[in-house]
Amino acid sequence: MNKSYVHGYDSRESRRLQDQANTLVELLHFDTSYQSGSRVLEAGCGVGAQTVSLARNSPEASFISIDISANSITKAKRAVESEGFNNVQFQQADIFNLKFEPASFDHVFVCHVLEHLSRPDSALTILKRLIKVGGTITVIEGDHGSAYFYPDSEAAHTAIQCQVELQRRAGGNAMIGRALFPLLRKAGFSSIEVSPRMVYVDPSKPDLVEGFTKNTFTAMIEGIRNDALNAGIVDQDVFDKGIQDLYRTTEADGVFCYTFFKAVAVKK
Amino acid sequence: MNKSYVHGYDSRESRRLQDQANTLVELLHFDTSYQSGSRVLEAGCGVGAQTVSLARNSPEASFISIDISANSITKAKRAVESEGFNNVQFQQADIFNLKFEPASFDHVFVCHVLEHLSRPDSALTILKRLIKVGGTITVIEGDHGSAYFYPDSEAAHTAIQCQVELQRRAGGNAMIGRALFPLLRKAGFSSIEVSPRMVYVDPSKPDLVEGFTKNTFTAMIEGIRNDALNAGIVDQDVFDKGIQDLYRTTEADGVFCYTFFKAVAVKK
Repeated sequence: MNKSYVHGYDSRESRRLQDQANTLVELLHFDTSYQSGSRVLEAGCGVGAQTVSLARNSPEASFISIDISANSITKAKRAVESEGFNNVQFQQADIFNLKFEPASFDHVFVCHVLEHLSRPDSALTILKRLIKVGGTITVIEGDHGSAYFYPDSEAAHTAIQCQVELQRRAGGNAMIGRALFPLLRKAGFSSIEVSPRMVYVDPSKPDLVEGFTKNTFTAMIEGIRNDALNAGIVDQDVFDKGIQDLYRTTEADGVFCYTFFKAVAVKK
Repeated sequence: MNKSYVHGYDSRESRRLQDQANTLVELLHFDTSYQSGSRVLEAGCGVGAQTVSLARNSPEASFISIDISANSITKAKRAVESEGFNNVQFQQADIFNLKFEPASFDHVFVCHVLEHLSRPDSALTILKRLIKVGGTITVIEGDHGSAYFYPDSEAAHTAIQCQVELQRRAGGNAMIGRALFPLLRKAGFSSIEVSPRMVYVDPSKPDLVEGFTKNTFTAMIEGIRNDALNAGIVDQDVFDKGIQDLYRTTEADGVFCYTFFKAVAVKK
């Protein structure tokens, strides 16, 4: 990877940075950067939330960021341009129908994408073909089965489970984080290193209480209310109590835990 | 804490050590050591599993290690003496009926103890009285609600839940790890810092597959089989499948996750 990365690649320094990560973006992305001249495919860039970090952390690498949604691509392009980066090209494309030449990328980056796919193993196999020998794939995924909290609440677990069930019905897997090692292994990658990124939130971390527990996780679960009720998979009272109990974990004695998994593996 | 600790207290070095921790003992204890001359109470030493680490990491501190079980004290004493340490005194004593003077210790250390108590908050209040102003308490506890794995298995979760239920019936709480912040806050401690210690095990870590997933966690759940069946809280077939499925997570594509919580807080 990028030897000129400003913070260096000393493992101690990496851990310190991880220690200091006050936001989710830092926690997940601080240790991803690519060497000058690298050509990197970001598969599934969405609205560019990660693309901005990639462009910032690897100013001398060039990125091709694809997404199946033209609308998302437009937003991602705007996000990256508004930050003043010019090392990203965007293309609308489907991971399962890519036109790139085999071994045409030094590295591939995939974040919050596999969870939505019914064939994540096939996607990894397809992406592996695009990587040069010796290149890497970086995969980041959450895992809703890793969510637990104080005070504990059965209703809150039920509400979270609604999201897992809806995602399952849509062909995805909201608990894919724990499966990164077996998925990468199945796709034939080598030197697979998985590092869990646990987000531990208590009142001593007000930024994470607001930024993660309330405005990221609970807001996401709250956002599937209508879909869950329409699908008939939960009683309205239980779901609403579950949301209330998730907000309860953000009070003065509350604790919330969630774990993302980041894997880096090599194509040999 | 101990400024002469061989590895120093630089945060980066601490993270490196945590990074390198290949065993549970290292993961939980590497960053606990006490200054020369400190008088430290280990409340609930059991058979001395932690006492040996304490004595080793703080050779110039003196420990009073207590346990309610005379039998455990005998074993703990033997363990510490067989390692050649002479900085630990042992006493049989009940945390809820201690004869020590108020403010007679610089620090208190409690590991895998609160989970067994029906009044962990009272225990912390009692222990706080024994600490000098400016001294610390260190608390380490597991959390069985933090266990998840690949392949996922409802039967395995049910088997784990049997342990949680038996411990609850005995007055304890096997999911207390996540509650360390609120417990210490309720007892009036200040500067509470909780650091989760996640044990992530995949086939690239064969020592942890054997030492933790198989021989620590699964063996512990397997050990409550008779109690769970006698209590009538689980069908034999389900429990046995649960154990089988826990062993399944130690195969070539398996993953196992568990989190311990370590808290350090100050008496002001």
